[in-house]
Amino acid sequence: MRTTDLIHQKREGEELSAEEIVYMVDGYSRGEIPDFQMAAFLMAVYFSGMSEDEATAMTDYLVRSGDSLDLSDIPGVKVEKYSTGGVGDKTTLIAAPIAAAAGVVVPIIASRTSGFMGNTLDKIGSIPGFRTDLSLEDFKAVLKAHGLAFMQQNQDIAPADERVYALRDLSSTVDSIPLMASSIMSKKLAAGVDAVIFDVKVGAGAHMKKQLDARRLAQMMITIGRRADKRIQALITDMNQPIGFAIGNALEIMEVSQTLQNMGPSDLTRISLELAARMIHFGKVTKTLDEAREIAQNKLIDLSGYRKFKEVITAQGGNPQVMDRFELLPNAMGAREIFSPRGGFVSAINAEDIGRAAAMIGGGREIFSDEVDPAVGVILEVKTGARVDSGSVLARLYYTNEERVEEAAEMVEDAFRISNSEPESRELILEVVG
Amino acid sequence: MRTTDLIHQKREGEELSAEEIVYMVDGYSRGEIPDFQMAAFLMAVYFSGMSEDEATAMTDYLVRSGDSLDLSDIPGVKVEKYSTGGVGDKTTLIAAPIAAAAGVVVPIIASRTSGFMGNTLDKIGSIPGFRTDLSLEDFKAVLKAHGLAFMQQNQDIAPADERVYALRDLSSTVDSIPLMASSIMSKKLAAGVDAVIFDVKVGAGAHMKKQLDARRLAQMMITIGRRADKRIQALITDMNQPIGFAIGNALEIMEVSQTLQNMGPSDLTRISLELAARMIHFGKVTKTLDEAREIAQNKLIDLSGYRKFKEVITAQGGNPQVMDRFELLPNAMGAREIFSPRGGFVSAINAEDIGRAAAMIGGGREIFSDEVDPAVGVILEVKTGARVDSGSVLARLYYTNEERVEEAAEMVEDAFRISNSEPESRELILEVVG
Repeated sequence: MRTTDLIHQKREGEELSAEEIVYMVDGYSRGEIPDFQMAAFLMAVYFSGMSEDEATAMTDYLVRSGDSLDLSDIPGVKVEKYSTGGVGDKTTLIAAPIAAAAGVVVPIIASRTSGFMGNTLDKIGSIPGFRTDLSLEDFKAVLKAHGLAFMQQNQDIAPADERVYALRDLSSTVDSIPLMASSIMSKKLAAGVDAVIFDVKVGAGAHMKKQLDARRLAQMMITIGRRADKRIQALITDMNQPIGFAIGNALEIMEVSQTLQNMGPSDLTRISLELAARMIHFGKVTKTLDEAREIAQNKLIDLSGYRKFKEVITAQGGNPQVMDRFELLPNAMGAREIFSPRGGFVSAINAEDIGRAAAMIGGGREIFSDEVDPAVGVILEVKTGARVDSGSVLARLYYTNEERVEEAAEMVEDAFRISNSEPESRELILEVVG
Repeated sequence: MRTTDLIHQKREGEELSAEEIVYMVDGYSRGEIPDFQMAAFLMAVYFSGMSEDEATAMTDYLVRSGDSLDLSDIPGVKVEKYSTGGVGDKTTLIAAPIAAAAGVVVPIIASRTSGFMGNTLDKIGSIPGFRTDLSLEDFKAVLKAHGLAFMQQNQDIAPADERVYALRDLSSTVDSIPLMASSIMSKKLAAGVDAVIFDVKVGAGAHMKKQLDARRLAQMMITIGRRADKRIQALITDMNQPIGFAIGNALEIMEVSQTLQNMGPSDLTRISLELAARMIHFGKVTKTLDEAREIAQNKLIDLSGYRKFKEVITAQGGNPQVMDRFELLPNAMGAREIFSPRGGFVSAINAEDIGRAAAMIGGGREIFSDEVDPAVGVILEVKTGARVDSGSVLARLYYTNEERVEEAAEMVEDAFRISNSEPESRELILEVVG
């Protein structure tokens, strides 16, 4: 009776007590509340929302459900960078080395995801030998030595969140603001970091389709973080077209290498530098954000970010030569060009469609248990605003298996909108929250 | 993927095709779609609603999931009466015998329910010997001979609906208008009746709390029925206080007996006669509704409705003497009076609270598998509008087990609101739809 009543109350938009939230999530975690009641509850939360108190109670429970990392024996301010996920989003792999090169301690604790967005683990997983399944000791050793380390989310960190997330994934309740906020924050709080710079993506290729929702998510994470004495800031950035030109794991590593050598796409460089600057500022390397921006810029130009990343690749068992010799990365055998059906201006590139096309040919997981093909993906030839002729190449699809290539190619073609007039240029960084 | 996408689309308020609706319900029925995805889908339907086309597709599938009764070899128009459920609602047991006495063929196919509302099966189940688990042949034989028969919903009728209903019951998605409409209509369409008079209850003691929702439910059922060539009409009636004075199975049978002898409460008599008149009119016994009203009135006054009910009790194995000798019905050993805490006017009697109190002491099922105690219940001493003194008896609680009597008594007391001024009288029959 009680469970059904709580579902009912949430459905009716009532606020539950911290105790009632815990009753639900703990009951579910321990197998006492069946998954169908939890799924109904999560959908009710999707529609009715949660107050900050409810989301905090949920976060606290998720943190308590597992272990917490203790990074206190590593000197310095531990600043993580986390993106809510986007298509072609490899900013972590650029901003983190730059910030680390500037002296910030940057622990990156990432988890695998399914869906049309790539994730950091799959990207670095395409570097031969790179290990992310580190023990806490090994992770801390790399972090201490290099100021940057990557670790796969430990199963013991917020395990209740893993369970809830798996259910959300299959019940279409992933993109609920309070559920996202509590899920993300539970992992950050358990990871023992002092501060987090969030990149909250908004647009066609992101979980958040509206800027208002992205802001609400950012604000909720900031509130939860503040209650746990963590410094949190969020950049809300545009995700209406993919970031950079490369979408696909090894393809993105190549673009990371180019960008860390200051030869990357301007949108990717710009966001990565701004994220790095804010990490540097939060890491107390500089007094002002402007000084931090200058340092980030310098660490890019003098290639110390680039060297830092190679250093960490080596430290975690990978082959750093891949950063210079791309033939050492997994390569796709097949390539297929996608042509513009007519002349005009590229007025939009639907990031979700591009991401889904890449996932379809093996670049991402449709479900959690799928294996990812590191070699495949999409390289855009043009971005929004470009002028194209009829028959111009819009993008290239790289594949290793013919199976769904036609379908994926059509999806890529459909992702491009070609108009007669030049589109207005969009802001990349829409706002800063916190 | 497809299932998650359909949940997502429904969550986003999109209309699904008939094929997609069937994919969901059929997949769930066959165990291919897990219950947690179905529960999330149902909650999304609760919030996003369903179009008439979607609800029709759902209904059609539910009908096809099982057998349909064939009543075509019984001459005459088969008119059922169905209430969406209320507290103290025993109108079926009065309207049906009166309509049958007037020559209408009335097949009543009822199912057990849980919750704070009683159901027809439990009410007649308190009559010793009365059997409702009839074979279709026996049911048809009684119907042919007496123009009235009661049957427990066969497991083979819309079995997919039973499965979905059980899930709705535990996931707080019972009171969704399209889910109610398709569930109710699937049973009516499969039952082989030609017409149905619905009593859609609205108010504190009903599933529908607002008249607007009750009207939408009525309209959706009428549309579904019309597409299947059935005549449907719905009375929307007030359920802010219990109907009549008796709540509880055997207690309600006593009140049915009194009412069929034209000595019953005026509200119960009035609604029952109006329902009977519409059944008589739909049953083509009269040309006009006014003539049908006159006949219903006559069949009450000349006791032919009363005799008809006794006739059917006998035909279905029950003891008809219970209608005259109430001591033959299950009797509660304990009685507890509930007193008015102060003088004034009874301005409201929360029907849900009364229903819950009666269920709590065994009069109803909290969950489906509970056993019902036929003897227990509540008898109201006063109804809304009555003048009471401090210490007047408001109601009596009849119980067989002391266990939760105190709690139930408090709930009954709390159900009464006593004000200083006389309340405005409420309309009993709010509107007729169809």
